[in-house]
Amino acid sequence: MDQDRLGGLHSPKPMLAGQRVLVTGGAGFVGSHLTEALLDAGAQVAVFDNGSTGQWRFLDGAYEQYPGKLRQCRGHLSDTELLCAAMSGSDLVIHLAANADIRHGVEYPDRDFEQNLGGTQIVLRMMHQLGIKRIAFASTGAVYGDNTSFKINEACPFPVQNSFYGASKVAAEALISAYAAAFDMQTYIFRFVPMVGERYSHGHIFDFVKKLRNDPDRVEVFGTGQERKYCLYVRDAMQAVCVGVEQGDLPVNIFNVGNNSSYTISEVLDWVAHDMQVEPGIVFTGRRWTGDNPNMHLDSARMRALGWYPKLSLREAVHRTVSYLLDNPWLLARDS
Amino acid sequence: MDQDRLGGLHSPKPMLAGQRVLVTGGAGFVGSHLTEALLDAGAQVAVFDNGSTGQWRFLDGAYEQYPGKLRQCRGHLSDTELLCAAMSGSDLVIHLAANADIRHGVEYPDRDFEQNLGGTQIVLRMMHQLGIKRIAFASTGAVYGDNTSFKINEACPFPVQNSFYGASKVAAEALISAYAAAFDMQTYIFRFVPMVGERYSHGHIFDFVKKLRNDPDRVEVFGTGQERKYCLYVRDAMQAVCVGVEQGDLPVNIFNVGNNSSYTISEVLDWVAHDMQVEPGIVFTGRRWTGDNPNMHLDSARMRALGWYPKLSLREAVHRTVSYLLDNPWLLARDS
Repeated sequence: MDQDRLGGLHSPKPMLAGQRVLVTGGAGFVGSHLTEALLDAGAQVAVFDNGSTGQWRFLDGAYEQYPGKLRQCRGHLSDTELLCAAMSGSDLVIHLAANADIRHGVEYPDRDFEQNLGGTQIVLRMMHQLGIKRIAFASTGAVYGDNTSFKINEACPFPVQNSFYGASKVAAEALISAYAAAFDMQTYIFRFVPMVGERYSHGHIFDFVKKLRNDPDRVEVFGTGQERKYCLYVRDAMQAVCVGVEQGDLPVNIFNVGNNSSYTISEVLDWVAHDMQVEPGIVFTGRRWTGDNPNMHLDSARMRALGWYPKLSLREAVHRTVSYLLDNPWLLARDS
Repeated sequence: MDQDRLGGLHSPKPMLAGQRVLVTGGAGFVGSHLTEALLDAGAQVAVFDNGSTGQWRFLDGAYEQYPGKLRQCRGHLSDTELLCAAMSGSDLVIHLAANADIRHGVEYPDRDFEQNLGGTQIVLRMMHQLGIKRIAFASTGAVYGDNTSFKINEACPFPVQNSFYGASKVAAEALISAYAAAFDMQTYIFRFVPMVGERYSHGHIFDFVKKLRNDPDRVEVFGTGQERKYCLYVRDAMQAVCVGVEQGDLPVNIFNVGNNSSYTISEVLDWVAHDMQVEPGIVFTGRRWTGDNPNMHLDSARMRALGWYPKLSLREAVHRTVSYLLDNPWLLARDS
C-alpha cells in the first residue's frame, strides 16, 4: 500500500459528541462501562450483544439516564440481517464481543478463533458492505505472547504466541489492519491489561470472593502469591478508548492500555479478605495454567501522550469490585 | 506456559532419513521441489494436494526415481477422512497448501483467511487427534507488513499487516504457536521471500514471459523498474526447510529464508528478454498493487548460522525459470 497513506495524517477526527456508535458486546462487564462512557461523551450508542456473558441489566442505569440515546439489540453476530439493521448508519463500530476468558483454551482449541476472529470477520464484512470506515477493537496484552521484556511497548519484538486467546486476538488485529489497508478504513486497536471494577464477572478476584464466601477460614490459590498483576480499573480503561478514538489520527492506531501500578496476588488476596471481613488461612499451590502471563506490564506511554492516565487507585478499584460482587451475589452464582 | 520449556532444548532431532513426512500442497511449484528434496534426504513422503494449482506431473520424475517412497493423495483438506488416512503414521507434517498469490486480496477479502488459516486449523486439529507432534509451515516475508527496516530479522518490531495474504499467514503462525504451547508440539515456521525456478507458475517473471510471448516488441510493467526483489531459487529455499527441521531445536523455530542477492525489475526484465531472444520496448506504468512489498529484504542470519546458504545465482535461477516456462507453454496458458 501507499507508504504516504500509512504514515500520513487524516483530517481532524469528529469528537464523540453526536456520533452514532455501535458497540458489540456492549452489555458485558467491559462493554457496559464503555457504553456509559460513550453516552457521557455525548454519543448515541447502539449495543449489540447476545447475552451469553453480557447482562442487559448492566445497562439499566444508562438507559434511564440517557432517554432516546441508547438502543439495545439482542442477537448473535451470525444473524447478519439483525446486525445489518443495528449497524446501519453508524459512524464508528467498537467491537468488544468475544470470548474473554484466556483459560480453557487447551480444552477447546477452536473456540477462541471461532468467536474472536470469526466475530471480527463478520463485523468487518458488514462494515465494508455498509461503507462504514471506522472500527475500534478490544485486543489484549496477551498478544505479546512469550515476550518477556519487563515493560512492553507496541513496537516490541515480533512475539511468539503462547495461548489460543492471544493468538485469536493477533489474528483479528491482523485482519483489521489488512482491511484498513485495502479499504481505506481507520482502526483503533486497544491492547488491554486485565480489568477490574463493578460488574466484573470472571478472573482472580471473582475466584477469591467466591471461594471465601464458601469457606471464610481457608483458601487455596494457584501460584506462589508473588505473581504481579498490572490490572486497570475498567472505567479508566474505557476512558482510554474514548481518548484513543477521538485523537488517534493514523489509519491503524495501536494503543497499550495498562497501569504502572500493580499488586501481587498475595496483596490483593489480603485486600479482598479485608473487604469481606474474613481472615482465612491461605495455601498457595504453586501450579499455573497454560497461557497465563502473570508479570505482563504494558508500557502505555503512547496513550499517556494523549493526556490519558488511570485515575482510580488499584486498592479502590479492588474495593469497588469486591463490594459489587457482594451486593450482587447472583453474579457469583454463575460459572466463572 | 512453562518458561523452561519455551527456552529449553529438546532431545536431538531424528534426521530426515527414514522419517515419514506428509506434505500438504506437495504437488505445487514449491511443494514438488520440497518433495524431491525430502526424498533426496532419505525420507518417505506422502503428498496431499487438491490439484487446484498443483500439478501431479510435477512429481512424475520423483515417483520414478524413488519407487515405493512417494505416496500421492488427491483431495481437499476438508475431506477429513482422506486427510486422516494420508496423515496417519507421519512423523512430521509440512503444511504448504495455501492460496499463494498475494494479489487480489482486495477483491476477495475472505479468501486468504479461509484457505490459509482455515487449512492450517484443519491440519493442526488432525495432528492433535492423531498425536503427531511436529509441524513445519510455509509462511512469508509478507508477515512483516508495514515494517520498513532495510533488512528484517525475525525479532523485528511487532508489525502492522497491510495485506490479507500476510494477515492470514500471521494468523496461521499464531495458531501454530498456540498449539505448540498447549500440546507440547514442535513447530518450524519458514518466512520465505518470493521464489523462482522450474515449475514457477505465477508472479512477475511469469507475467513478463507471458506478455513477451504475446508481443515481443513492447511490454507494459507495473511500477518504475527500480523496485528491488530479493527472490530465491526454489530448490535453495527447500534445502533451508530440510536444514531447519533437522536442526531447529526449540518448540517454536522461526526462520527467515531469503537472499542477500537481488535484482531490480528493470534488470530481471532484461534477463528475461535476453533468454527469450527478444528486444522489446518497455513502458513502466508507475502504478503498484495493494499489499506488495517490493523492497523487502529478509535477514536470514538465523538460517545461515545452521550452515545454509543459497547456492544458485539469481541470474541462473531466472534463466531456469524462463527456460522451463518456454519448454512448458501449457503453464503459460493458465491464468496467472
